Amino acid sequence: MNDPQPKAFLPGQFAEFSKTVSEADVYAYAGITGDFNPMHINREYAEQSRFKTRIAHGMLTAGLVSAIIGTKLPGPGTIYLKQDLTFKAPVRYNDTITARVEIEKQIVEKNRLVLKTTCTNQDGVLVLDGSALVIAP
Amino acid sequence: MNDPQPKAFLPGQFAEFSKTVSEADVYAYAGITGDFNPMHINREYAEQSRFKTRIAHGMLTAGLVSAIIGTKLPGPGTIYLKQDLTFKAPVRYNDTITARVEIEKQIVEKNRLVLKTTCTNQDGVLVLDGSALVIAP
Amino acid sequence: MNDPQPKAFLPGQFAEFSKTVSEADVYAYAGITGDFNPMHINREYAEQSRFKTRIAHGMLTAGLVSAIIGTKLPGPGTIYLKQDLTFKAPVRYNDTITARVEIEKQIVEKNRLVLKTTCTNQDGVLVLDGSALVIAP
Amino acid sequence: MNDPQPKAFLPGQFAEFSKTVSEADVYAYAGITGDFNPMHINREYAEQSRFKTRIAHGMLTAGLVSAIIGTKLPGPGTIYLKQDLTFKAPVRYNDTITARVEIEKQIVEKNRLVLKTTCTNQDGVLVLDGSALVIAP
Repeated sequence: MNDPQPKAFLPGQFAEFSKTVSEADVYAYAGITGDFNPMHINREYAEQSRFKTRIAHGMLTAGLVSAIIGTKLPGPGTIYLKQDLTFKAPVRYNDTITARVEIEKQIVEKNRLVLKTTCTNQDGVLVLDGSALVIAP
Repeated sequence: MNDPQPKAFLPGQFAEFSKTVSEADVYAYAGITGDFNPMHINREYAEQSRFKTRIAHGMLTAGLVSAIIGTKLPGPGTIYLKQDLTFKAPVRYNDTITARVEIEKQIVEKNRLVLKTTCTNQDGVLVLDGSALVIAP
Repeated sequence: MNDPQPKAFLPGQFAEFSKTVSEADVYAYAGITGDFNPMHINREYAEQSRFKTRIAHGMLTAGLVSAIIGTKLPGPGTIYLKQDLTFKAPVRYNDTITARVEIEKQIVEKNRLVLKTTCTNQDGVLVLDGSALVIAP
Repeated sequence: MNDPQPKAFLPGQFAEFSKTVSEADVYAYAGITGDFNPMHINREYAEQSRFKTRIAHGMLTAGLVSAIIGTKLPGPGTIYLKQDLTFKAPVRYNDTITARVEIEKQIVEKNRLVLKTTCTNQDGVLVLDGSALVIAP
């Protein structure tokens, strides 16, 4: 807040955040957003589905990416402009998800950053892919 | 589940969901995702910022879109492939957000739908714009 | 509230409160305090650690002591001045913790009480030890 | 985890974390710990009390200290041994609390750190004072 100079963000810099996604997370998230899709909160339904078990909301997983952007890299003061998300694989209850944000490009004259944003599970499977455009803090 | 025929989804069909976003929503969402960006949960910091007040997480607002997709249109059984989000304006505590999902195009041979996804506040301001690609249920 | 006489609190008096600490408790607590230490919410990390499993926040366990002080002994109206805590052993998910508060000493002229505060698990293992100083109600 | 050398922690190093404590925080915390002291969750009672309004649990505020210890300084891998807390002033709903952890002393031969732990509100009032003893990660 007290530095008028734009901070140097170099391509390749990255930050990560990991969390085991619990049933409590998914249920609380459903309660906030109203997303009561039975895939997330109906065990009987989910067991009959292609994934055979209840899964987390894709947008909940995306929230872990947003957490990194807002608190670590680029961090507080960042303005979120765009986020593209591709849902690659389901996140099951109790999967441990590692979100990762990496600087892809710095657009110095507009103080913008292009970020590569991904989430993988404990087996290294890519569950979420995407990119973000932000105004650096 | 018991209908082998793909349901007809016609361009122009839409569904909406509205919710007043409370402080409790934002705090619980921060707690699930770990997104303790001070813009969301630090009143003193937020009042000094460009928005002059604490705001909701953009990805929380996006969750309202996801709620429609998973529960109303196309509804349960939908597979979420992609979501592009453009954050247009802040969502302040106690704003009433109306999320809207509209069928833009049906790709019949692949059973896919392109959806226009938007969120507006109580004053009609567009706060979130975007589009989604899904496999119809 | 309607009794000008200080209530007699005798050394040896005690009260207890027991709760099975759930994953949902730990996750919600992390969400309130921002304490996303991976020991608490990352199963993969915790399984590699000395405790081999995710554990509850020590300060969450301490909250059970505070619950007794504020609601049972000495109860509503108590002013909490000091609390010393020694974390003796981990609290694992689904451990049933019994918090216990015992009057150790009454300092009548200052209307203060010294309390012995402990927590044990379902196997009788002392997980938290400590003492508190309060103004009696 | 992959560095056998103890990290150098120098006296004077510190880290901070700030949060506006909301009604939702206090209510969720009461629900986890069972601390339904009316000072925290009964407006009528609290308005008749010496503080004239509902206040947060002292132990909730202490959780912000624990969050720093477990995630920032010393950070993940730290073992919490002791925490002494002195409750100096009430935390009211919507107070913005800044927790601060500062290295006071490094006991190199035992790999322990003594930490000064404090919380202040938006007006600079010290609400929580104390010290911690930890095993460095």
